[in-house]
Amino acid sequence: MWGFGDSPHPPPPPSHPGIINAEKSEFNEDQAACGKLCIRRCEFGAEEEWLTLCPEEFLTGHYWALFDGHGGPAAAILAANTLHSCLRRQLEAVVEGLVATRPPMHLSGRCICPSDPQFVEEKGIKAEDLVIGALESAFQECDEVIGRELEASGQVGGCTALVAVSLQGKLYVANAGDSRAILVRRDEIRPLSSEFTPETERQRIQQLAFLYPELLAGEFTRLEFPRRLKGDDLGQKVLFRDHHMRGWSYKRVDKSDLKYPLIHGQGRQARLLGTLAVSRGLGDHQLRVLDTNIQLKPFLLSVPQVTVLDVDQLELQEDDVVVMATDGLWDVLSNEQVAWLVRSFLPGNQEDPHSLSAGWSSQVLEAGPDADTQHTGEGRRSHSGRAGVLR
Amino acid sequence: MWGFGDSPHPPPPPSHPGIINAEKSEFNEDQAACGKLCIRRCEFGAEEEWLTLCPEEFLTGHYWALFDGHGGPAAAILAANTLHSCLRRQLEAVVEGLVATRPPMHLSGRCICPSDPQFVEEKGIKAEDLVIGALESAFQECDEVIGRELEASGQVGGCTALVAVSLQGKLYVANAGDSRAILVRRDEIRPLSSEFTPETERQRIQQLAFLYPELLAGEFTRLEFPRRLKGDDLGQKVLFRDHHMRGWSYKRVDKSDLKYPLIHGQGRQARLLGTLAVSRGLGDHQLRVLDTNIQLKPFLLSVPQVTVLDVDQLELQEDDVVVMATDGLWDVLSNEQVAWLVRSFLPGNQEDPHSLSAGWSSQVLEAGPDADTQHTGEGRRSHSGRAGVLR
Repeated sequence: MWGFGDSPHPPPPPSHPGIINAEKSEFNEDQAACGKLCIRRCEFGAEEEWLTLCPEEFLTGHYWALFDGHGGPAAAILAANTLHSCLRRQLEAVVEGLVATRPPMHLSGRCICPSDPQFVEEKGIKAEDLVIGALESAFQECDEVIGRELEASGQVGGCTALVAVSLQGKLYVANAGDSRAILVRRDEIRPLSSEFTPETERQRIQQLAFLYPELLAGEFTRLEFPRRLKGDDLGQKVLFRDHHMRGWSYKRVDKSDLKYPLIHGQGRQARLLGTLAVSRGLGDHQLRVLDTNIQLKPFLLSVPQVTVLDVDQLELQEDDVVVMATDGLWDVLSNEQVAWLVRSFLPGNQEDPHSLSAGWSSQVLEAGPDADTQHTGEGRRSHSGRAGVLR
Repeated sequence: MWGFGDSPHPPPPPSHPGIINAEKSEFNEDQAACGKLCIRRCEFGAEEEWLTLCPEEFLTGHYWALFDGHGGPAAAILAANTLHSCLRRQLEAVVEGLVATRPPMHLSGRCICPSDPQFVEEKGIKAEDLVIGALESAFQECDEVIGRELEASGQVGGCTALVAVSLQGKLYVANAGDSRAILVRRDEIRPLSSEFTPETERQRIQQLAFLYPELLAGEFTRLEFPRRLKGDDLGQKVLFRDHHMRGWSYKRVDKSDLKYPLIHGQGRQARLLGTLAVSRGLGDHQLRVLDTNIQLKPFLLSVPQVTVLDVDQLELQEDDVVVMATDGLWDVLSNEQVAWLVRSFLPGNQEDPHSLSAGWSSQVLEAGPDADTQHTGEGRRSHSGRAGVLR
């Protein structure tokens, strides 16, 4: 639990995450991690090699992460054990730039052109851009580690990743997948992330299929229609959209339009290549469409979107709270409902975060059945979900 | 001049555009067009062919457009003569959907599945999405026409395109390039478009070069650095970013990083492949990097971004004004300065739009020299620009 109000730099989080499981699934593929981020200082040595001069920590940050696994827990476990180390390494590699008033063009601090600082200033490059870059690189590095480890151990699977990092008076939220973080204040609910699903990333996914049609192996159509087309639609003019369109138009249906859609279904039922409900995350290097050789990975990105919150400037109060949760929570409770829950529970239960668990779980259970009513006729979906409250 | 206040449907614009030239360049490559958009009704005939049953107009809209030419005026002239016809055709092709409460899944209105209307509703498809789709398709169709016409006549060139369409109580603003439209109200300045330049579209452009490195023919680097690198930077760790990065990181410079950058320069000096200042527009099918075979077109998009303004809901007043102008104006005057000019001039000069021209031109001339002060040492740039005021 992280108190915004008492000091500009939050106290270290507990050694194990304050995580609440909605307890709606027997087997949970989700993982969480949190801890202190100790960044050591390195210096550019005489032989142009990096030498660790002082092994003690130089900068301290805090790290919280949620990983929603699919196809087994292996990727989520690897991510929970690895991502923070990748991030620490990436931050240590640029730490000299992090502590400068403005990152120098050359990490050595050497000025090759007299106007180098001016070029950096004109591009508007700030220390926070190095943290964003470090988070982007860390997600990519962790994805590669997971790919290698899963292959070596003959395991499969993938996971989403939602990470919050507090460093130098700022809170960074990096998200790859359909988890979500919000900041709940007395008079405000501020979203700190966007969800990446086949629906929200439709144009990017369709464009890749347009540029590399061989990725669909002649089995899928990249076009979007209101529903999957069938024989009776042949020759009709039907609503559709392609990769370059935000609007809709009509096209005359031909045989190739009857193929299974690249993105199919609506809302929580939407699937990429009929297989995956998210379009960003870690792992899934071996994932293929059932009974085919069609790979999911080219369409999946491991790059997160990073949001930056200036904690110092926001004048956060004692009862301002960041809520991080996987889709198990957000599928059944709105931001407003979660904020209401947090605001009602916390004042009397500051010392006992687990008391939130009971209310949380019952709300998820209550909301569940209604939220599942879909006209597609597909069966109920379990609401396995994890939520973390940073306060 | 288009009065919002007097009627929910604006009177037809004048037969020639109310366009003001800043008169700063002898030869103007820009073009403008405006007129009534008469959309005829078509019906799905017995032989599944489109037949024009009633040639009279069925829906009426209004159309204003600005085209900022480069490499000669040919593309801008073709766009000014063609785009409105493309748009009319695209709208006529979907007019049955436009006038329905909600566009039907099948243009014929025939329901193949009983739940077809529900699928359309779940996707949230509305009549305005068909207008957005028609604008997107019209830009693409017009781009193809320009490509064919220029090739046939041995001409070259390209242009940006900014289009405003008033239809069924909504104002649609479609933009491909670096022109801009704003709505100026008494207490509000509302941007109606975003600019598309090599800088604003960096990630899309870098990603295409990442997917198809052959497009750069080994002559350019897709990486972004604060400035172009040179021999002295070799072996140093330098700030950079790649297609997947919003943040910055450091990389050790190798020989391939010394190539000319895919996107080079800053602000108004930024160029795509050292050649073009915009990343969207019409034409340029033949444009190549000087003395090479490297084509610009794969990086250029003709697709516009479309903004929708609900004119009826906004309760626009008599003195609310839409300003559309090319970069010649926006390079030297801010939205706030333009709004101030419009608010000061119009009350006393409602009947004489040309009186705005004098003040406008003098402001552009006054602002010019300061706005040109760049440390890059490049020479002064002329401010040829066009502006239109819809009121």
